[in-house]
Amino acid sequence: MLTRIDHVGIACPDLEAAIARYESVFGLTVVSRETNSEQGVREAMLAVSAAPAASYVQLLEPLHPDTPVGRFLARRGEGIHHIGYAVPDITAALAAIGESGVRLVDERPRHGSMGASIAFLHPSDLGGVLTELVQARGGRALQPCETKAI
Amino acid sequence: MLTRIDHVGIACPDLEAAIARYESVFGLTVVSRETNSEQGVREAMLAVSAAPAASYVQLLEPLHPDTPVGRFLARRGEGIHHIGYAVPDITAALAAIGESGVRLVDERPRHGSMGASIAFLHPSDLGGVLTELVQARGGRALQPCETKAI
Repeated sequence: MLTRIDHVGIACPDLEAAIARYESVFGLTVVSRETNSEQGVREAMLAVSAAPAASYVQLLEPLHPDTPVGRFLARRGEGIHHIGYAVPDITAALAAIGESGVRLVDERPRHGSMGASIAFLHPSDLGGVLTELVQARGGRALQPCETKAI
Repeated sequence: MLTRIDHVGIACPDLEAAIARYESVFGLTVVSRETNSEQGVREAMLAVSAAPAASYVQLLEPLHPDTPVGRFLARRGEGIHHIGYAVPDITAALAAIGESGVRLVDERPRHGSMGASIAFLHPSDLGGVLTELVQARGGRALQPCETKAI
């Protein structure tokens, strides 16, 4: 069902400062920037490994304090927010996971970074781990840095 | 410097219950079990993807409350404890990261899961993210499940 670790999602109060840190300390490169109003975040994807086994650091800055990431920052401080796993078929994966008894935050896939379809699973049923499923668009290959709103 | 996300480290109060959850919900398989007295944990590695782009879920149960993972559980509850990135040369990576100003929890590599050399970086200098570097032993290929103490 899971084919790789797609990304680690990291909550930060200042996206530009966080990007600068990952660029300077680890030499990572931003491959996508987006504002996702639905999720209430401004975010950047930095490539750790390339396709076909692509993996990313996803840096997330809340658009407002009253958003999931904003509330996470207020409650727990900056740090790892979630882990994202790649799946080949997110609809099939959600059906199977739902049958296993894990509650789905998203009953149906929604828009994620870089054109992916994503869905979150409830951390209360997964040992406190906010878990995201990611079905990449076209293998989620690396692409030039782009800025867009979805 | 970083070549892939090697693993996500998850703190749990009951290793067997956590393994059962990842096996039943996601169909993952345990590829290694170890007790690491130096780090004060009993742990299991479950394969998400295979070599050469191997990635794992690492489940960590503290041996005692007065261990790093035990204190993490008491302070924050179960959940994501750290993220581990693969590096080809951990000594070179530690030198470069140290020069960037990030404090090293481990000045020199120590023993990690499945024969790897590992080192932790200080979360206070990395936006609250406890970060581990992993130099795999022989590419850290998948191997039959083994139980050993190191």
